[in-house]
Amino acid sequence: MIRTLGFKHDGTCFDNISLNEIKSDQFAWYWVDFNQPTPEEEKELTSTFDFHPLAVEDCIERDYQRPKLDDYHDYIFFLLHSLPKETYDALELNLFVNDKMLVTFHHEELRSVNQLFEKLQHYSVKEAVDPVNLVHAIVDNIVDEYFPYVYGIEDQLNHIEERTDENSSHDLMDRLYDVRHDMQKLRRSLLPMRDLLYRLLNTTQISIDKEQQLYFQDIYDHVIKLVEMLESYRDFSSDIRDNYISVSSDKMNNIMMTLTVITTIFMPLTFIAGLYGMNFIHIPELEFQNGYFVVLGVMALIATVMFFIFRKIGWLRFSRSRKKKRRRIFLK
Amino acid sequence: MIRTLGFKHDGTCFDNISLNEIKSDQFAWYWVDFNQPTPEEEKELTSTFDFHPLAVEDCIERDYQRPKLDDYHDYIFFLLHSLPKETYDALELNLFVNDKMLVTFHHEELRSVNQLFEKLQHYSVKEAVDPVNLVHAIVDNIVDEYFPYVYGIEDQLNHIEERTDENSSHDLMDRLYDVRHDMQKLRRSLLPMRDLLYRLLNTTQISIDKEQQLYFQDIYDHVIKLVEMLESYRDFSSDIRDNYISVSSDKMNNIMMTLTVITTIFMPLTFIAGLYGMNFIHIPELEFQNGYFVVLGVMALIATVMFFIFRKIGWLRFSRSRKKKRRRIFLK
Amino acid sequence: MIRTLGFKHDGTCFDNISLNEIKSDQFAWYWVDFNQPTPEEEKELTSTFDFHPLAVEDCIERDYQRPKLDDYHDYIFFLLHSLPKETYDALELNLFVNDKMLVTFHHEELRSVNQLFEKLQHYSVKEAVDPVNLVHAIVDNIVDEYFPYVYGIEDQLNHIEERTDENSSHDLMDRLYDVRHDMQKLRRSLLPMRDLLYRLLNTTQISIDKEQQLYFQDIYDHVIKLVEMLESYRDFSSDIRDNYISVSSDKMNNIMMTLTVITTIFMPLTFIAGLYGMNFIHIPELEFQNGYFVVLGVMALIATVMFFIFRKIGWLRFSRSRKKKRRRIFLK
Amino acid sequence: MIRTLGFKHDGTCFDNISLNEIKSDQFAWYWVDFNQPTPEEEKELTSTFDFHPLAVEDCIERDYQRPKLDDYHDYIFFLLHSLPKETYDALELNLFVNDKMLVTFHHEELRSVNQLFEKLQHYSVKEAVDPVNLVHAIVDNIVDEYFPYVYGIEDQLNHIEERTDENSSHDLMDRLYDVRHDMQKLRRSLLPMRDLLYRLLNTTQISIDKEQQLYFQDIYDHVIKLVEMLESYRDFSSDIRDNYISVSSDKMNNIMMTLTVITTIFMPLTFIAGLYGMNFIHIPELEFQNGYFVVLGVMALIATVMFFIFRKIGWLRFSRSRKKKRRRIFLK
Amino acid sequence: MIRTLGFKHDGTCFDNISLNEIKSDQFAWYWVDFNQPTPEEEKELTSTFDFHPLAVEDCIERDYQRPKLDDYHDYIFFLLHSLPKETYDALELNLFVNDKMLVTFHHEELRSVNQLFEKLQHYSVKEAVDPVNLVHAIVDNIVDEYFPYVYGIEDQLNHIEERTDENSSHDLMDRLYDVRHDMQKLRRSLLPMRDLLYRLLNTTQISIDKEQQLYFQDIYDHVIKLVEMLESYRDFSSDIRDNYISVSSDKMNNIMMTLTVITTIFMPLTFIAGLYGMNFIHIPELEFQNGYFVVLGVMALIATVMFFIFRKIGWLRFSRSRKKKRRRIFLK
Ligand SMILES: [Mg+2]
Ligand SMILES: [Mg+2]
Ligand SMILES: [Mg+2]
Ligand SMILES: [Mg+2]
Ligand SMILES: [Mg+2]
Ligand SMILES: [Mg+2]
Ligand SMILES: [Mg+2]
Ligand SMILES: [Mg+2]
Ligand SMILES: [Mg+2]
Ligand SMILES: [Mg+2]
Ligand SMILES: [Mg+2]
Ligand SMILES: [Mg+2]
Ligand SMILES: [Mg+2]
Ligand SMILES: [Mg+2]
Ligand SMILES: [Mg+2]
Ligand SMILES: [Mg+2]
Ligand SMILES: [Mg+2]
Ligand SMILES: [Mg+2]
Ligand SMILES: [Mg+2]
Ligand SMILES: [Mg+2]
Ligand SMILES: [Mg+2]
Ligand SMILES: [Mg+2]
Ligand SMILES: [Mg+2]
Ligand SMILES: [Mg+2]
Ligand SMILES: [Mg+2]
Ligand SMILES: [Mg+2]
Ligand SMILES: [Mg+2]
Ligand SMILES: [Mg+2]
Ligand SMILES: [Mg+2]
Ligand SMILES: [Mg+2]
Ligand SMILES: [Mg+2]
Repeated sequence: MIRTLGFKHDGTCFDNISLNEIKSDQFAWYWVDFNQPTPEEEKELTSTFDFHPLAVEDCIERDYQRPKLDDYHDYIFFLLHSLPKETYDALELNLFVNDKMLVTFHHEELRSVNQLFEKLQHYSVKEAVDPVNLVHAIVDNIVDEYFPYVYGIEDQLNHIEERTDENSSHDLMDRLYDVRHDMQKLRRSLLPMRDLLYRLLNTTQISIDKEQQLYFQDIYDHVIKLVEMLESYRDFSSDIRDNYISVSSDKMNNIMMTLTVITTIFMPLTFIAGLYGMNFIHIPELEFQNGYFVVLGVMALIATVMFFIFRKIGWLRFSRSRKKKRRRIFLK
Repeated sequence: MIRTLGFKHDGTCFDNISLNEIKSDQFAWYWVDFNQPTPEEEKELTSTFDFHPLAVEDCIERDYQRPKLDDYHDYIFFLLHSLPKETYDALELNLFVNDKMLVTFHHEELRSVNQLFEKLQHYSVKEAVDPVNLVHAIVDNIVDEYFPYVYGIEDQLNHIEERTDENSSHDLMDRLYDVRHDMQKLRRSLLPMRDLLYRLLNTTQISIDKEQQLYFQDIYDHVIKLVEMLESYRDFSSDIRDNYISVSSDKMNNIMMTLTVITTIFMPLTFIAGLYGMNFIHIPELEFQNGYFVVLGVMALIATVMFFIFRKIGWLRFSRSRKKKRRRIFLK
Repeated sequence: MIRTLGFKHDGTCFDNISLNEIKSDQFAWYWVDFNQPTPEEEKELTSTFDFHPLAVEDCIERDYQRPKLDDYHDYIFFLLHSLPKETYDALELNLFVNDKMLVTFHHEELRSVNQLFEKLQHYSVKEAVDPVNLVHAIVDNIVDEYFPYVYGIEDQLNHIEERTDENSSHDLMDRLYDVRHDMQKLRRSLLPMRDLLYRLLNTTQISIDKEQQLYFQDIYDHVIKLVEMLESYRDFSSDIRDNYISVSSDKMNNIMMTLTVITTIFMPLTFIAGLYGMNFIHIPELEFQNGYFVVLGVMALIATVMFFIFRKIGWLRFSRSRKKKRRRIFLK
Repeated sequence: MIRTLGFKHDGTCFDNISLNEIKSDQFAWYWVDFNQPTPEEEKELTSTFDFHPLAVEDCIERDYQRPKLDDYHDYIFFLLHSLPKETYDALELNLFVNDKMLVTFHHEELRSVNQLFEKLQHYSVKEAVDPVNLVHAIVDNIVDEYFPYVYGIEDQLNHIEERTDENSSHDLMDRLYDVRHDMQKLRRSLLPMRDLLYRLLNTTQISIDKEQQLYFQDIYDHVIKLVEMLESYRDFSSDIRDNYISVSSDKMNNIMMTLTVITTIFMPLTFIAGLYGMNFIHIPELEFQNGYFVVLGVMALIATVMFFIFRKIGWLRFSRSRKKKRRRIFLK
Repeated sequence: MIRTLGFKHDGTCFDNISLNEIKSDQFAWYWVDFNQPTPEEEKELTSTFDFHPLAVEDCIERDYQRPKLDDYHDYIFFLLHSLPKETYDALELNLFVNDKMLVTFHHEELRSVNQLFEKLQHYSVKEAVDPVNLVHAIVDNIVDEYFPYVYGIEDQLNHIEERTDENSSHDLMDRLYDVRHDMQKLRRSLLPMRDLLYRLLNTTQISIDKEQQLYFQDIYDHVIKLVEMLESYRDFSSDIRDNYISVSSDKMNNIMMTLTVITTIFMPLTFIAGLYGMNFIHIPELEFQNGYFVVLGVMALIATVMFFIFRKIGWLRFSRSRKKKRRRIFLK
């Protein structure tokens, strides 16, 4: 579907304008949104707007494309990653911008674009709106959508950390690696978007005035904050992993201690019992009236001595369960 | 609460001045402190001072915000992290500065700001004080407050290192990871503050004379020192962790050796005892008068040989407890 | 074999021209392809074209040579890595280019060069083709050939990750290290090719117009994308390895628990049985009518208590098999 | 103690001059050494020399201070780390220098300063000595003192590496981490001293002629060499640690193999013995005349088969002790 | 031994010229080689050539010296690492060069210098040879000598990798760390030589024409290739180490499984046998005619069930030996 908005010089705004009409001089500038376009509609990028084939190729291809900004001589073309509702697999938004035009192109329905389009469609007075304002609004929305995802990462890491020494920590590490995987996806979108915003701040292709620059600077700031949060989480997740390994090794030590203590106490006792279970014709001890009780006593003595030795060298410690306090990494 | 101090051209200082009055020409410059402001008071940032909405938003939002410096055309706005009494979760201090004004804004009571405000309020003569001096005093206080925290990190690491080979080292690693977590928080505050100070040294928005520059340079120096200490501690904490792993693996080796020695000595003995406990009608050894004593001798021989073999290959070593000398990492 | 194509000023193209003839003024420019040349043919590089001995040496030597671009005064010489069908061991393609000449040299049959040569040979009209277009086409083909290999890496990593907790994971890690090895090979080709393309974009030796520059920029973009994918895969493969280690350690813990539980339950029971198998003349319990049943009861009691203790401390957990969902790292 | 040396224009040198006299025009330049000054003497820094309070604070404070160079308008102030006899905890040496003055300040006795002072004091002819020569001599001495420490690190690492597979390697890792700790201390002194020397080479505050520059360049060279040696040692120590872990894991494997072999051989034998120790009224084998010998044969057979199986799968290997050749890392 | 070659303006070359004569105007330029000089001969560096004492010190000292280039005003002094026949401990070659002179100094016999010297000595016609050509030839020889060493590293790594899962992998890791050690030595020579060559390409002290520059560029290229190979090998060796750890952990798992399976099968059986070996006066089962056979049956049943359980959970897997294909990392 192709949606259009035309803005006259007096600030009034009209929608549902045909693509031929919208490029005429009656409009100061216009926004054309290719929302999940059909292959037929995709061709308008070339036939109506005459965009460069390389930019058109980047739009149409459904392959992964990293955020980037290309300067074609009459317009800039750039590409952002927007986050969808449920996954961390970013959706692409392609934008063609100059001072008279904003063309957006996306293969999937995008919340941030929709909201803005409908808002402009239904309010009558739109003073002082120009393509730069629109681009700011779209980019701001897209960047703001990252925050809940990034905070979600933190929640998951905290949840995993709290459970590190539970016995059911069986697939905890697996979850941790999934979270790291998601972090990597976010980072792969945010790092080039940081560079892109830096270039957008310094492009001469569209006229961003000093006041508008402050607003783009503010988005740039947020992206830096998001990137730093992800760096922090990465370190944190490495520490969780390393801690898990040491907890796991502690557990193994405990299990082995138990095994060793039991074996070391019972082996000599069982041996003694076996000794007096032998059928030699002449074993003097067997004939003592109280031999059995003496042996029982010796056995008790051996077990007791062993017990105190193990307590001395610390092998009779039992694992206390540790309480974790939940904490926030970033938000206070 | 909004607190005010107005400084006349002759250096005299008055407090409790209303916000309207303070901007008049009778004051050479003024300090307004928004100390835990109510939502009503927060609005003065816009209505009285007409600060830029983006800066106001950064002030008012209670979200984590990284230290940064923004140059609005008539003033600079910057944001520092101050450390509270008990935790490592930094508190934000927002400052608006130009040559005629210092506005500070903070959602929590801050020691460093309070001390300075009260000092200025109660002493009558304040020669040669200007906004730059005040900013220096505040930033100096805030940075100085980091030192005990950073030294505290060192103490904790030393304490953990000393106990690495204790048997009760059970949740030692957990504590280590908590310390690393705190270090990360401090680093997250200090790294952008280092950059901020560098930019403050080079800003043209406020007039810092050569002499004052030396003083800011001194703070910058301290922040670099703090950052280097944290880097050192990070390396040190990694080494503690790695050492713990090797100590832990040594322990496991010891436990396994004990188990193996005991098992290897008693298994053959128990087998022999079992052998002569069989009920076959014809077992010649059983009928020898001294069979029992011969078998006892053989058993003793086996045990002795085993014992020497194990001593030879070094499996009869017992863990000596290691003494750690406490050492200082940074302070001599 | 040496293949030639001569392009006249009117755009017509002729093949099978002798090396002497092709340098004459009747051709606007020409392409000479040294395809698996014989030692005899290799000498033409010097005798006919008088290329610099260092460049000729780089061509002829069959040693590994990293992609690079050298500026000899009358032409540029550069060297690319092309991927063959089945392995990740790149093949070299050497190119000598100026505005009147394209000479390609390769010791192995290269798909990308062949396709292009045959396409030019069989179509009659070749408007607006110049050496720069040809170089673009060749480099574009070569870079495009990397994508299936890089996606293949992703598939292998996903396949390995899915099987991480299978019991047959025996040589999984070995395969992982082989994949890492292949990734390293790809990286070793792609990193210098990224630099080479950057230099090609900025060379003044061949005249690349603004329009053509966009096309080289597009290839540069693809190489950056490939490099970033490899970086991502490297992180991902490290995480798989670390996860494998934690899965492996979990398994060991389970095995040790089983061993310890079994040993701890049966050792006391066997000891008791051994106790009453002793042949002392006076063991009162043996003479009780129901002694056997009492002992059986005691044994059952011990076993039951042990069982509940182990369940309490969580050592009776059995490894559930985990289901992995397959996911895509890059493509959506 | 404050020691002074005054140099006349004719090159003659006088000592024991009072602080008031020394600043007079009769001396071309002078050296004042604050050697472990009393609090009273420390005040001369301000009262006599009028040094900047920030520099004075850096001198007097006994806190750790990183090497740095500050340019005060009439002199440069810098701070070096000198190594004491027995530990790696550097001592601070503060220097104030311009073309007419060298003031050194240190809280501890420093060999390098003492030697130089006494040498100047006792030789009568000091042609062509100026503050820059003195600074060079002091800095050269201080840097040269690092070499034995750094070579000492190498010796310790070699000693640790040689003993990696000894059985008494118990606290080897602990020593390794102590060495790493010392390396970190050296690095913390040397890295900022490298930067400091670079700045000293480029300062305009003191006049270093081309010839003198070569000499400072030579010291700079040595510091770079020291830093590179430490980097190498760091890598080497990491490899020792990793190797220790693999040696340790090898040992564990050996221990477990022994345990498993012994257990696996004796368990079935003991079971068979137990079988024929049962007291059933009818066990046919027990009544065979040669039953006992047949069972002994079967047992021997089982043990032999087991033995060959274990030899086949390689579990009967015994740890050979490995010989390490001692080698030099840096010195040939 | 001091060897000399004097080149006249007509290109003729004479050897065995005394040091006094060689500096006279009859020679266009000369080469003096200090080959393992005696202390007496070393003094000529100062007395005859008047080289700077710092450069002379660097020559004469037998300490490790990193490759570097120093610009003394009349000549450049630089220092290379040459590889000897059998070890990776580089030998130093010191060179003093300007347009009229080449002085080489080395404490050990160096192949690359000898070959060149003898070649010049024995051929009569030496057209177009100048000090720059000689320096190129020497540096080229020295760099070329690195290749077999670096390829040797690769062979060793491949050999180690192939044997990773052999049982005799006992000191494999030790060898790996030795190889890493050698790699580090090579890197320590090659990294500064790369920088040195870069500076040599850009020095203005000796006149390198455009053509000669291409030749030095070619050497620079080779050094970059060597450095990249070493980086690759470093990664590869880390992967071998990590793989070894996972192979080792797999082995441990197998051993533990065997132990657990054996223990778990025989412990209950041995317990049952012990049970019916007790001497209670009344154990009903013992009096059944077929009691023994029933018990044997029960035992067989228990063993069979256990066997199937272990097969189900995968603990009865036996380690297949893995076949490694040998592969080349760099050469195709
Ligand atoms: Mg697309
Ligand atoms: Mg926003
Ligand atoms: Mg916002
Ligand atoms: Mg997963
Ligand atoms: Mg903001
Ligand atoms: Mg936490
Ligand atoms: Mg705020
Ligand atoms: Mg301070
Ligand atoms: Mg201070
Ligand atoms: Mg914790
Ligand atoms: Mg200071
Ligand atoms: Mg310490
Ligand atoms: Mg080649
Ligand atoms: Mg392409
Ligand atoms: Mg394409
Ligand atoms: Mg392999
Ligand atoms: Mg593209
Ligand atoms: Mg995945
Ligand atoms: Mg001090
Ligand atoms: Mg020196
Ligand atoms: Mg010296
Ligand atoms: Mg220690
Ligand atoms: Mg030197
Ligand atoms: Mg060594
Ligand atoms: Mg030397
Ligand atoms: Mg060469
Ligand atoms: Mg060559
Ligand atoms: Mg070694
Ligand atoms: Mg070459
Ligand atoms: Mg690593
Ligand atoms: Mg290989």
